[in-house]
Amino acid sequence: MKPGSPQPSDNTIKEVSIDCVMFGFHADELKVLLLKWNEIDWSLPRGRIFKSEPIAEAASRVLKETTGIQDVFLQQFHTFGAADRYQNYTVDQKNRLLDNKSKEGIEHELFHESIISIGFYALVDFGKVTPNLTGSYQWCEISAIPDLLFDHNDMIELALVALRKDLRYLPIAKLLPQKFTLREMQKLYETILNRTFDRRNFHKLLMSYDFLIKLPEKKTGTANKSPHLYQIDLEKYETALQDGISY
Amino acid sequence: MKPGSPQPSDNTIKEVSIDCVMFGFHADELKVLLLKWNEIDWSLPRGRIFKSEPIAEAASRVLKETTGIQDVFLQQFHTFGAADRYQNYTVDQKNRLLDNKSKEGIEHELFHESIISIGFYALVDFGKVTPNLTGSYQWCEISAIPDLLFDHNDMIELALVALRKDLRYLPIAKLLPQKFTLREMQKLYETILNRTFDRRNFHKLLMSYDFLIKLPEKKTGTANKSPHLYQIDLEKYETALQDGISY
Repeated sequence: MKPGSPQPSDNTIKEVSIDCVMFGFHADELKVLLLKWNEIDWSLPRGRIFKSEPIAEAASRVLKETTGIQDVFLQQFHTFGAADRYQNYTVDQKNRLLDNKSKEGIEHELFHESIISIGFYALVDFGKVTPNLTGSYQWCEISAIPDLLFDHNDMIELALVALRKDLRYLPIAKLLPQKFTLREMQKLYETILNRTFDRRNFHKLLMSYDFLIKLPEKKTGTANKSPHLYQIDLEKYETALQDGISY
Repeated sequence: MKPGSPQPSDNTIKEVSIDCVMFGFHADELKVLLLKWNEIDWSLPRGRIFKSEPIAEAASRVLKETTGIQDVFLQQFHTFGAADRYQNYTVDQKNRLLDNKSKEGIEHELFHESIISIGFYALVDFGKVTPNLTGSYQWCEISAIPDLLFDHNDMIELALVALRKDLRYLPIAKLLPQKFTLREMQKLYETILNRTFDRRNFHKLLMSYDFLIKLPEKKTGTANKSPHLYQIDLEKYETALQDGISY
């Protein structure tokens, strides 16, 4: 069995799969975790849903089974499905994909099933998370994603749109270290939103919320003068997220 | 066949259905369109997806076939599925649901299939839209929704959450008449968000956007002094929605 490819069985829902867009954020960089099928073909990590299993649990299990990553924040963002999801292969690509030991299983999977796919995204600090890299998985810069199998390029694009919207409503700042500088928080927002903010205005905006606690400590070892460290009051953060956080 | 119930066939995806939360807005009121199964049991309008059909097209078709409503803005908001979606019936409820002519079809549908359901919401002015009311469909006040079949109460709740978030990003103000007063726009926001705004602050906020065009005309026939009419510059509205509209 190709690592990471869904394993159809009598206990799984035949026509539906789960695909995971795993965003990694670290040191101002945003990456996505990709599965390598061969030298040319890549896809997102994916799997199936057991008939007796809630979808969110299936997504956690799939991510753990395929990449070894667990206990991360997973968010359902869109369900995909169209007649041509699995029919836009070139002959070369089809031959290449079928040219392996589990030919039958793959053909079954690729060309006849999984008409519907439920997309989840997750976001981790990739400096802290080590995927189960058996040579099959690789972090890829968001700006350098290759042509992926299926509709997986579209999925990443839509996951990014969802992530940007969710920045207002989900506790995404939890991604930061426990103690962080305002610059680090600004960089998290800038990286996800793919835009820049005026430093002074952004800091003013952040300070207009009551969920940031200014610590007496300062960050040392930075090039310029030592900036103040902050941490998040989780309860106040959750309250602020209910109305949505402006930026 | 019970009106509105999904019709499984070889050409449809067996394990997946579509459920529609049809919000109706008119004269400051928000309602949901419900399907009446019998004197006691209600559900959302629902249907199936053809294997050759994109999901969004399936949702439009289902809504048209079940309720006669077409050409409305339909938005996918969440996909539902769990082992117990179809197992939380009381004996009375089960007997009642099975006590009709299409017993077999219904039993098949209710108790064995459609493990996954893709939720869409739509929003129309229910003063303008007349559903295909054969006695089976009825608008119901959002505050007076009865206990529905399946997990449909949860679906309505989640659809409302999605609608509230989408208010920032989707052209929901298109629901207003072509020429409207600022009070009407405020009421649309207040009804969807289930909160009130200070009139002066809200109008100030609205006027901070450039997509509202103040017309020379005033609205007549209102109790107080005639308020100005506005219309939306759609191009500027779409631009503003890209960043999200604050409120």
